[in-house]
Amino acid sequence: MSNETTIRRHKGDFHWEGVDVLRYKQDGAAPFKDVTRQVLFEDAQLPAQLRYFEVAPGGYTTLERPEHAHAVMVIRARGQCLVGDRSFELAEHDLVSVPPMTRHQFHASPEAPLGFLCLVASQRDRPQLPTADEARELQRLAGKL
Amino acid sequence: MSNETTIRRHKGDFHWEGVDVLRYKQDGAAPFKDVTRQVLFEDAQLPAQLRYFEVAPGGYTTLERPEHAHAVMVIRARGQCLVGDRSFELAEHDLVSVPPMTRHQFHASPEAPLGFLCLVASQRDRPQLPTADEARELQRLAGKL
Repeated sequence: MSNETTIRRHKGDFHWEGVDVLRYKQDGAAPFKDVTRQVLFEDAQLPAQLRYFEVAPGGYTTLERPEHAHAVMVIRARGQCLVGDRSFELAEHDLVSVPPMTRHQFHASPEAPLGFLCLVASQRDRPQLPTADEARELQRLAGKL
Repeated sequence: MSNETTIRRHKGDFHWEGVDVLRYKQDGAAPFKDVTRQVLFEDAQLPAQLRYFEVAPGGYTTLERPEHAHAVMVIRARGQCLVGDRSFELAEHDLVSVPPMTRHQFHASPEAPLGFLCLVASQRDRPQLPTADEARELQRLAGKL
């Protein structure tokens, strides 16, 4: 992002001037459904990035457990999140703290999208996927959502 | 912030569970009017903080020029910002990039509050206030708002 682009306006419907709507991840990298990614702030002057993820109705993010922490604010509800072994209903402007090495997953409700800001360190590890045993346990937990 | 507090719910009206509404700055530190500060994420695991500032109708933040960059998203409009020598009208979800050493100030409209998220590095310098000459020039620019 250039320092020239001082302001980037919200165009409506959670799209912004000069911000591309990206694939969440490479296909086949890990299971997920109907998620887009937009990088709102990524600047060599800042040690962190701010991204906007949107999960379409009925979709979900990858269940993963990275070494780095995430700080999340919901700005388009509704849905649920699984953090560790707990699940939570999410509403607009709720805050979610995901500590390092904590499995987590976001689900949109069947009726409406779930959109959230996510702050992470610019320098961070790649996602660690669950082992087969962990995946089964997580599947069980996810069934509670 | 403890890792125990995984979720902090929005209580409505831009207040959150477990988040204190703080004074923007010490009185007398620099001119400002009717601004509050809430630290949403401040965690040793993250290299950046996310704060929520709210400027009451007719209020304004300090005109300052720090060495560190700011990344801003408006989540409660309306108002204007001055960044460098340009001023912008702000609407909900607009993004503002403030490069290092760039003077900036946020103004709420007379009729409604202006609330915005602000991402900064956890390790950063204290504000540098304008010199007397700069203050006069800035006063002139602010008159355009």
